[in-house]
Amino acid sequence: MAFATLLTDDQVKRTHEASLEILENIGLLVRNEKARSIFFKHGAKVDPDSHIVKLPRAVTEKYIKVLRPTFTFRGRDPKFDKTIPKDSPVIVTGSSAPDIIDPITGKERRARSDDIARIAHLINELPAYDMFSISTLADDAPPGQFTLARLYPAIKYCVKPIRNTTKDMDDIQAIMKLLYAVAGSKEAYFEHPFVTHHYCPVVSPLTMDQLSTEAIIYFSELGLPVYPTIVPNAGLTSPMSMAGTLAQGNAEFLAAAVLMQMVHEGTPTIYASLPTVADMRTGAYASGGIECGMLHMAFAQMARFYNVPCGGYIGLTNSKVNDAQMGYETGMSVVEGILGGMDMFNMGGLLDALKAFNFAKAVIDDEIAQMLKRVKRGITFNEEELAVDVIAKVKPGGSFLMEPHTVKRMKTEALLTKLADRDARPIWEKKGSLDIEAHAKLKVNEILSHHTESLLSEEQEAQIRSEFKDLIPGMLAMPQPQ
Amino acid sequence: MAFATLLTDDQVKRTHEASLEILENIGLLVRNEKARSIFFKHGAKVDPDSHIVKLPRAVTEKYIKVLRPTFTFRGRDPKFDKTIPKDSPVIVTGSSAPDIIDPITGKERRARSDDIARIAHLINELPAYDMFSISTLADDAPPGQFTLARLYPAIKYCVKPIRNTTKDMDDIQAIMKLLYAVAGSKEAYFEHPFVTHHYCPVVSPLTMDQLSTEAIIYFSELGLPVYPTIVPNAGLTSPMSMAGTLAQGNAEFLAAAVLMQMVHEGTPTIYASLPTVADMRTGAYASGGIECGMLHMAFAQMARFYNVPCGGYIGLTNSKVNDAQMGYETGMSVVEGILGGMDMFNMGGLLDALKAFNFAKAVIDDEIAQMLKRVKRGITFNEEELAVDVIAKVKPGGSFLMEPHTVKRMKTEALLTKLADRDARPIWEKKGSLDIEAHAKLKVNEILSHHTESLLSEEQEAQIRSEFKDLIPGMLAMPQPQ
Repeated sequence: MAFATLLTDDQVKRTHEASLEILENIGLLVRNEKARSIFFKHGAKVDPDSHIVKLPRAVTEKYIKVLRPTFTFRGRDPKFDKTIPKDSPVIVTGSSAPDIIDPITGKERRARSDDIARIAHLINELPAYDMFSISTLADDAPPGQFTLARLYPAIKYCVKPIRNTTKDMDDIQAIMKLLYAVAGSKEAYFEHPFVTHHYCPVVSPLTMDQLSTEAIIYFSELGLPVYPTIVPNAGLTSPMSMAGTLAQGNAEFLAAAVLMQMVHEGTPTIYASLPTVADMRTGAYASGGIECGMLHMAFAQMARFYNVPCGGYIGLTNSKVNDAQMGYETGMSVVEGILGGMDMFNMGGLLDALKAFNFAKAVIDDEIAQMLKRVKRGITFNEEELAVDVIAKVKPGGSFLMEPHTVKRMKTEALLTKLADRDARPIWEKKGSLDIEAHAKLKVNEILSHHTESLLSEEQEAQIRSEFKDLIPGMLAMPQPQ
Repeated sequence: MAFATLLTDDQVKRTHEASLEILENIGLLVRNEKARSIFFKHGAKVDPDSHIVKLPRAVTEKYIKVLRPTFTFRGRDPKFDKTIPKDSPVIVTGSSAPDIIDPITGKERRARSDDIARIAHLINELPAYDMFSISTLADDAPPGQFTLARLYPAIKYCVKPIRNTTKDMDDIQAIMKLLYAVAGSKEAYFEHPFVTHHYCPVVSPLTMDQLSTEAIIYFSELGLPVYPTIVPNAGLTSPMSMAGTLAQGNAEFLAAAVLMQMVHEGTPTIYASLPTVADMRTGAYASGGIECGMLHMAFAQMARFYNVPCGGYIGLTNSKVNDAQMGYETGMSVVEGILGGMDMFNMGGLLDALKAFNFAKAVIDDEIAQMLKRVKRGITFNEEELAVDVIAKVKPGGSFLMEPHTVKRMKTEALLTKLADRDARPIWEKKGSLDIEAHAKLKVNEILSHHTESLLSEEQEAQIRSEFKDLIPGMLAMPQPQ
């Protein structure tokens, strides 16, 4: 496949140049002291009063050259390991929603650790998801276990790669203990690190924060998988123009990527973003807007210019329900992504501009993701596929139905969707006139009602319990009416 | 924008070659005698018994060379005239559904001429539609007025370009009388022909029919706008392989296009298709499948190879309701279309694999079409848009909200959607928790409740009534509970 592009090659180069100018002349406000000192040691100009860091062109260019062209996600079960761009598209859940649509009441409420256990199991079972980025926060987390209460149920029920974030260094120390306990030892974990760490160290415009920046440095030093996402919102935190948002966002990606390379040359990263254009009538966060996918296409072009894998949050919707708006906002942006050359799609399960997880949407997104993978597989092209001989045999006016050429391909050429209804109306009515949300809910119940033991062994559970005395149970239980 | 492509240049050429081989060695069954005689006169080999027409390579190549690179749609009001590819994307309704979802009862029933009046008015008012292809049949058509009963209400309430089809030559004679009456005279109509004629003369595989072929010849002779659509259904009427469907479909397009050029060299045409891959589990017509858009992308590449504008039926769904399936099936395929380089989208208003028109879907599709037009507009790129000076002025950590650069673009950079809900959940709940179908129905009622007089003058109406004594009233009335 050749990707669709919204920028010419010259425009890509000019964006790159503009970003170098921004980094050299405007610079970044870097709140983290360690980061400032790393930047300084590697040739940046650091103002000790304003904490503005300026990157001379030669410095930025030096570290762009050592960026790695691939990134590997590892799962606890290595058969789920994926490397982008080779295995693109890698499909991931959207993450860190504070709320969930309760599967029984249909009402929005704060999400809890038992929700995460259920979601982890669902994502473990749904075929198109390649990675579980922990979908919600856990409102029931005991003090000091903000991240543990999210990561533990995720690991307990999902052996695919997991993406995780943390609050601060204490949080990081806690989860590393958990990961070592699951792996058997620190050494064993480092041999196959099955959690990918993720942060948003750059707050647009052009500000590196304290804690996420610290975390990015920490994992880069250790050589553990970590990457940043850039989140400009045109009109508020970046210029209202898409080109300006691109120039600034690209500078922000380069700043974070360069810092990681200064810490550890050759550390893999991803050109990840969540770019939006604000709805200036109300200031609404328009993550369902068509411009989100357009900006992703442009950022994907920048990523290819630097030869780094790319991706980010896409397939998002502003809708509060699984209606047609949810469908087209999700579907349109992810097709922009796949035809624009994105490698990684953080796309599953979230409604209401990333605010709430919804089980049925996660299932619908799984089918949409299968469609994306079908697009990526493309059109198989050779003489047998062209089938001129078959066309000759069938003759004008004939039927291809019974041809061996047809039979051989009938289960593989087209995606045999499981959720989408293709029945004729009378049959559909006889089956209860279900819309796709109803089909998706049935699928959710089917998956969640399979009683599932923890995917951790007794030894692993015992080790974890001995390390964390008051850890949440993290058990998968069918949601019950309250 | 550079378009996404699923085929390499070599694969495009090989497809072209395979199609020439099909036309030369396998040929077409041509049921229409006049077509056979035209083919014969211009160098084709015609078997008088089997009615198989074979086109020597040199003949096909000769007529490919005279294909026109543009096609113009004219409206009764010339301000709606559109020429593709210059004015791409041209957005059109899907057409000729036998049924409609009754706007009052929500039940499917046969469509009538008064439905067409309402739809015509709706499409006339919705901003993203460029052309009205008459959406339904008219079950109440009096004998001999099969097409009149559809075209008359369409013309009465829509001054945008209209796309029409007919049954037979009597039908054509009747509608031409109508069109001349509306234009004032035959001469006036020929000066600005505001109806584009459309047929499916090729029944896959490789068969030209009797009546549609006759019609294509008729309008090509007159120099009136007409084009054919190719409708292969992989696994049933074309090879199960997408590449084979492409080779056969391309041969079918070439056969129809060559015939039109033989009739009238340089007559404009469109490379139009509705390609699907059958769901071989049930034989279902999977027009909502992701493969429909993929095949459109490939056909668009073939069209560019021949330098003819392209398009066809897309944005279709197998869903019976305006649910998330409708949303993503519609949205995903049309984005494949826009990024794949389609010029014309017959996409509006149909549910259930083209079987039923739905008012709310037509309104939702209008907003989706606006999103497509936003994608096509692309990213404006120059130094002012790059805004490095604005980024410098705002400084790291600042806000772009109050910048003149922002204010200047706040109504134009992003599409300000009218239907999609972007409210925060509490506000959305306060407003009644409406999904997008509910918003769309409100919009339908708003448009239909504006009392609208016929857009034909009293003279035109009088002339029409004198020509057709028992013509259906074709009046726009608000749908009423029965």
